[in-house]
Amino acid sequence: MKSKQDDSNTNLIHFKKEVDKFVSERNWTKYHTPKNLIQALGIEVSELSEIFLFKDLDIQLIEENPILLENISDEIADIFIYLISLINRLNIDLTDAFANKMKKNRNKYPIEEFSNGNYHKR
Amino acid sequence: MKSKQDDSNTNLIHFKKEVDKFVSERNWTKYHTPKNLIQALGIEVSELSEIFLFKDLDIQLIEENPILLENISDEIADIFIYLISLINRLNIDLTDAFANKMKKNRNKYPIEEFSNGNYHKR
Amino acid sequence: MKSKQDDSNTNLIHFKKEVDKFVSERNWTKYHTPKNLIQALGIEVSELSEIFLFKDLDIQLIEENPILLENISDEIADIFIYLISLINRLNIDLTDAFANKMKKNRNKYPIEEFSNGNYHKR
Amino acid sequence: MKSKQDDSNTNLIHFKKEVDKFVSERNWTKYHTPKNLIQALGIEVSELSEIFLFKDLDIQLIEENPILLENISDEIADIFIYLISLINRLNIDLTDAFANKMKKNRNKYPIEEFSNGNYHKR
Repeated sequence: MKSKQDDSNTNLIHFKKEVDKFVSERNWTKYHTPKNLIQALGIEVSELSEIFLFKDLDIQLIEENPILLENISDEIADIFIYLISLINRLNIDLTDAFANKMKKNRNKYPIEEFSNGNYHKR
Repeated sequence: MKSKQDDSNTNLIHFKKEVDKFVSERNWTKYHTPKNLIQALGIEVSELSEIFLFKDLDIQLIEENPILLENISDEIADIFIYLISLINRLNIDLTDAFANKMKKNRNKYPIEEFSNGNYHKR
Repeated sequence: MKSKQDDSNTNLIHFKKEVDKFVSERNWTKYHTPKNLIQALGIEVSELSEIFLFKDLDIQLIEENPILLENISDEIADIFIYLISLINRLNIDLTDAFANKMKKNRNKYPIEEFSNGNYHKR
Repeated sequence: MKSKQDDSNTNLIHFKKEVDKFVSERNWTKYHTPKNLIQALGIEVSELSEIFLFKDLDIQLIEENPILLENISDEIADIFIYLISLINRLNIDLTDAFANKMKKNRNKYPIEEFSNGNYHKR
């Protein structure tokens, strides 16, 4: 019996393979240049943004509204799918890229300096 | 001896925990509302986009330029970090959201109809 | 007889008044905070971007396709409308802001240095 | 004596000519394809957005802070400059595009239905 996959037991390679299969089967690799994928990423983020335009949807309200939560989840998945396709094309190991950037972030925002809750973006 | 983590052996929960720890230690949870995180996502995608503005950087050129590749990887990591923080705040299981959306995509773009390489976005 | 208005005879104040009237008549001023208007601007730019996703539409092709040209013109107008609403709210004189920024641009990109067609964005 | 130009006495053609001159003198027309200009527009909107990230800057606060107001005005001018370059390339009369879109908006959002301050975006 195969147990359900969720975030606690699913490797990034799973998503990379699934997206690669989906793109290859439709012969869409030619469309998925880095520049096009970044354009698509921006469009998907805007579709997610539009759900919140002229509205203040707090977390509790979202969690209590299954249709709204599904719309948001779908848009988040779209962003993730294009992000995965982008790292597929560039042979980027996201675990590695994430570790490198988090290290830079920890150096840039030392806990002792920022634990007061201040936010100095760059 | 701890073996190196990479996309073939790293669960999403790893990223969720790391990002949550980073945000909590700096008392930044108050800034990380869904709406703010979506705004931040858009800004990070634009920073990635800017690398490609007025240029056509193909995959080979990127892979042969370590500094360029690191810049791109850093921006991709930034996008991923904000995406992870967003699903943390909304208690979304990304594996689940991904599976649901991919199923919709497969229904919307059946292989038999799209294997000719046509692209009909919605 | 009132002659037709076009770009050769229409002041910016015309657009400012029209947009202000439209917004006021619907009691939408409360929605048109600077932050919300900037979010709306981003969404409209993405809608325009989507027309060009996975496609290379050159100028001749657009000009020969009236429906496509109208779609593009509509999205451009949407961007302009939100931009005008933004300067309305902030009491910005766009003629002045434009002159100041163009002066900075001329200093940053001197003709003698850039007339070779190189592009060094910032 | 030449009187100062401002939004009450400056036609759109003024901006179109100024931008066209700036672009031509640097031989940048080749970069200013519609698709590239839309990409640039998105980047400039994000730079404006970043000024407001994790902050709530209300109108009074902005108007009382000359440096902040200049930063915002500069970003708004950048957006306007790329928008003008885009309509230059596509030979679009913005006065006309604006009038057409405003007419559609008035039909879509009749005053009698929306004067209660409700906002139904599309």
